[in-house]
Amino acid sequence: MPTAKVLIDGHWISSEGAATFHAMNPRTGETLEEKFPVSPWFEVDKALHSADRAFQECRAWPGERFAAFLERYAERIEARAEDLIAAAHAETALPVKPRLADAELPRTVSQLKLAAHWAREGSWMRPTIDGKLNIRSTLAPIGPVAVFGPNNFPFAFNSIAGGDFAAAVAAGNPVIAKGHSSHPRTTQLFAEEAQAAAEETHMPSGFVQLIYRTSHEDGAQLVSHPLLGAIGYTGGRHAGLYLKSSADAVGKPIYLELSSVNPVVFLPGALAERGEALATEYAASCLMGSGQFCTNPGVVFLISDSTADQFVANVVKSFTANTPQPMLGPGVQRSFLSGVETLSSLGAKLLCGGSAGPNPCTCENTLLQVSGQQFVANAAGFQTEIFGNGALFVMCENLSEISACLKALEGNLTGAIYSATSSTEDEAAYTQLAGILRQKVGRLLNDKMPTGVAVSPAMNHGGPFPATGHPGFTAVGLPASITRFAALHCFDNVRDDRLPPALQNQNPLGLLRLQNGEWTRDPLTLQ
Amino acid sequence: MPTAKVLIDGHWISSEGAATFHAMNPRTGETLEEKFPVSPWFEVDKALHSADRAFQECRAWPGERFAAFLERYAERIEARAEDLIAAAHAETALPVKPRLADAELPRTVSQLKLAAHWAREGSWMRPTIDGKLNIRSTLAPIGPVAVFGPNNFPFAFNSIAGGDFAAAVAAGNPVIAKGHSSHPRTTQLFAEEAQAAAEETHMPSGFVQLIYRTSHEDGAQLVSHPLLGAIGYTGGRHAGLYLKSSADAVGKPIYLELSSVNPVVFLPGALAERGEALATEYAASCLMGSGQFCTNPGVVFLISDSTADQFVANVVKSFTANTPQPMLGPGVQRSFLSGVETLSSLGAKLLCGGSAGPNPCTCENTLLQVSGQQFVANAAGFQTEIFGNGALFVMCENLSEISACLKALEGNLTGAIYSATSSTEDEAAYTQLAGILRQKVGRLLNDKMPTGVAVSPAMNHGGPFPATGHPGFTAVGLPASITRFAALHCFDNVRDDRLPPALQNQNPLGLLRLQNGEWTRDPLTLQ
Repeated sequence: MPTAKVLIDGHWISSEGAATFHAMNPRTGETLEEKFPVSPWFEVDKALHSADRAFQECRAWPGERFAAFLERYAERIEARAEDLIAAAHAETALPVKPRLADAELPRTVSQLKLAAHWAREGSWMRPTIDGKLNIRSTLAPIGPVAVFGPNNFPFAFNSIAGGDFAAAVAAGNPVIAKGHSSHPRTTQLFAEEAQAAAEETHMPSGFVQLIYRTSHEDGAQLVSHPLLGAIGYTGGRHAGLYLKSSADAVGKPIYLELSSVNPVVFLPGALAERGEALATEYAASCLMGSGQFCTNPGVVFLISDSTADQFVANVVKSFTANTPQPMLGPGVQRSFLSGVETLSSLGAKLLCGGSAGPNPCTCENTLLQVSGQQFVANAAGFQTEIFGNGALFVMCENLSEISACLKALEGNLTGAIYSATSSTEDEAAYTQLAGILRQKVGRLLNDKMPTGVAVSPAMNHGGPFPATGHPGFTAVGLPASITRFAALHCFDNVRDDRLPPALQNQNPLGLLRLQNGEWTRDPLTLQ
Repeated sequence: MPTAKVLIDGHWISSEGAATFHAMNPRTGETLEEKFPVSPWFEVDKALHSADRAFQECRAWPGERFAAFLERYAERIEARAEDLIAAAHAETALPVKPRLADAELPRTVSQLKLAAHWAREGSWMRPTIDGKLNIRSTLAPIGPVAVFGPNNFPFAFNSIAGGDFAAAVAAGNPVIAKGHSSHPRTTQLFAEEAQAAAEETHMPSGFVQLIYRTSHEDGAQLVSHPLLGAIGYTGGRHAGLYLKSSADAVGKPIYLELSSVNPVVFLPGALAERGEALATEYAASCLMGSGQFCTNPGVVFLISDSTADQFVANVVKSFTANTPQPMLGPGVQRSFLSGVETLSSLGAKLLCGGSAGPNPCTCENTLLQVSGQQFVANAAGFQTEIFGNGALFVMCENLSEISACLKALEGNLTGAIYSATSSTEDEAAYTQLAGILRQKVGRLLNDKMPTGVAVSPAMNHGGPFPATGHPGFTAVGLPASITRFAALHCFDNVRDDRLPPALQNQNPLGLLRLQNGEWTRDPLTLQ
């Protein structure tokens, strides 16, 4: 079987890279037949120059053009659903139903359509006009965006179909996708549809491009290249920080989503009120998709008493009763087991699981436990992420010990607090803990598990470092996610017919603008 | 005379730093009498902990509280104007009138009042509500902000009174000001008024703090400290990049304004139409304030012909006729002369000036010239900033040579193109060059010099690296500048009475919100 082709400058071409790799089927442990290339630098460089040409061609196009592409692409994905689902199932072992067919594919299609909507709506540009001084500014596309997708969402975060892709395109930027090595065939299928949609909607050649893998050095060169505008990265912390340091050194905006343990606090009133139901809810959230979610609730804080003990026992029962599902690959399994090993070596007590499962790429559902005192004494160590179907329970003496634990947390994507429907004690505890947690997380939840990341304008899939690289931006939630891939363009004393439509006196796009200090859709009346 | 005190945790205390420094009067070359301390780490650490306590106290306060402080502070500055102007004049040699008294002080006062207005108005928070899913998000204060001010605006960019300070406070953050060593007394006077205003308006102790100087290592430790939220820095590239690398390593947002040569293109039609007036306009802009502006038009592109030669000759005449004014200090003078030396050694021809002037801290008004070919061949070298009353003229063969030069530019704060009032040729040239320049600058000007940076909501005082650290943000222009010092806070399923007012159903602040996909000030109606 010949090596798969890369998509560069509008054409599927044979890579000249000597090195190749295969994906594997995590369910069977078998290596998949197709061979994918590791692109050498000159291919990446070619993609960069093509993306730059594409950008020069389309950087002043109206949102409508990008919306048309996104919508056509969404339609094509729907038509190709069967192939995509089969490929993703083979490469990731994620269940066809409900996960891939009923949840992730529709979500991906919907994200692209929403991105089209907001590209047209245009308020992400925040046009601002000072009529008296004739100074105007707007957010504008930043230039070609490199997107590095993660292993755990072969569709919704795919480098050439997921949230970062949709946001980068909605802003008007070409995308160079670096596929994740664990699902190259899935990514290739997307790229086929993206390229076909790009042709149908007359996008510039090189508007969407795909390479499957590069060396680490070439990845660093890509993210720091003068022709690149910005980078979206979702994945492991080590590789992410390596790319970040390269991009930072040349002031290139890089948006990272790294790791997160997603603390959850169950207050005593909540456990007293509905402890059994909460144990079920927690176990379901933590084990869903083998726990391979960025927002998996990995560290739980409880005040140690008999109700809490009962809660823990119930969770252990659920964990033990559930059959572990395959993980995304042997690397995930290895990393999980090594994380469990780290926590154990630091003194965490194993409540259940802890070992590899009977099938390929599986781990036993795993729970570990430490005291609040232990946690505070080695907070960095006990925040080691065990990405997968496992969690750490932290049993605290009292509320102030939970406070101390929360203060010792790093930045996280989410944090949740469960409290009683009505309880003065829980309410006081909530106020105290929420004040601390609010500064540590991007999304604060009440009485809800963090694993559902709704594609809502109000979503923040972000948070303080090291959960992400910048706490002011979100990777999910349109239109906010679009602004990551924009630069602020100011026009000072520029003649009206030379201005982008968003800033022209007549407001031909009908945008909401901050005009002479007021938010309005009215055209600008010159005095 | 005793060493000046630092302002930490609400008190003026004697620094325990052994090292001290003096400012100098650039006009006379004399060392000023007052002695200022270099703070040791434990003082910086004390300031950090105090700022954190202040933040915990006020982080949920409404904008009204910060507005009240900003307005009271502005009033106090006006009342103390005489002392401030005298101190700044002695420390910087900037003229009392019009610069300090009629321009910079009123601008500083107005900036603080505008910040108060936008703190109350609240649209910078961009509240976003998904009523159906009960997910809500808003920008919120990021935590204590360290502000490093530059030498060239002792008032308007002062670390405890200028634009970064105003924006950080408007967002609701305490500020740790690191004064610039060239005007410590001016900064101390501001801090006295800031602290008094903070007390009068019942801000937490440690809401505003001042240290004058630290070691480089302690500066790096400050900007990467877990208790710090973000950093605003305006100044030299070397020190800025050092701080940036420290902040980046721990994902701490740092907003830098570094250096910029601010390219200007005069198209042939413009020169033919009004060449003499443009020479006068250019010389005035370039020499104003001894050219010590971030937006000083330092590199000029012309198509070489007799009109252009006449233009250059006119500028040379102005430069030679004008008496050079003192620079901000001997360091600025040294750096200017070293820049001239660099450009000369690379082959630039000296048209006038080039040496130190007769008085302390002065340099002759200086013009250098290269060909477009020379510029392109060593673009990095010829973009060496000569901060002060000097510029480089680039004489190009034709339009495409100008294009090549512009393509070789680094990121800049501004770029300007002058064209004829009506000329098909200039219009075509404009389209071509503006397309290139637009990607290289934060603010694109037509027929206007870049040196006036209006405090307008539409201003962008920012641009691609290395002009700044992130092309999506501006340091001047409210409310946009506020968002640099904000984190995105999402609330998922949080009970209404636990939400910040900006996100509550009733919209008690009357904010413009993106609610169920529409921009509105209406309260949220629950289905």
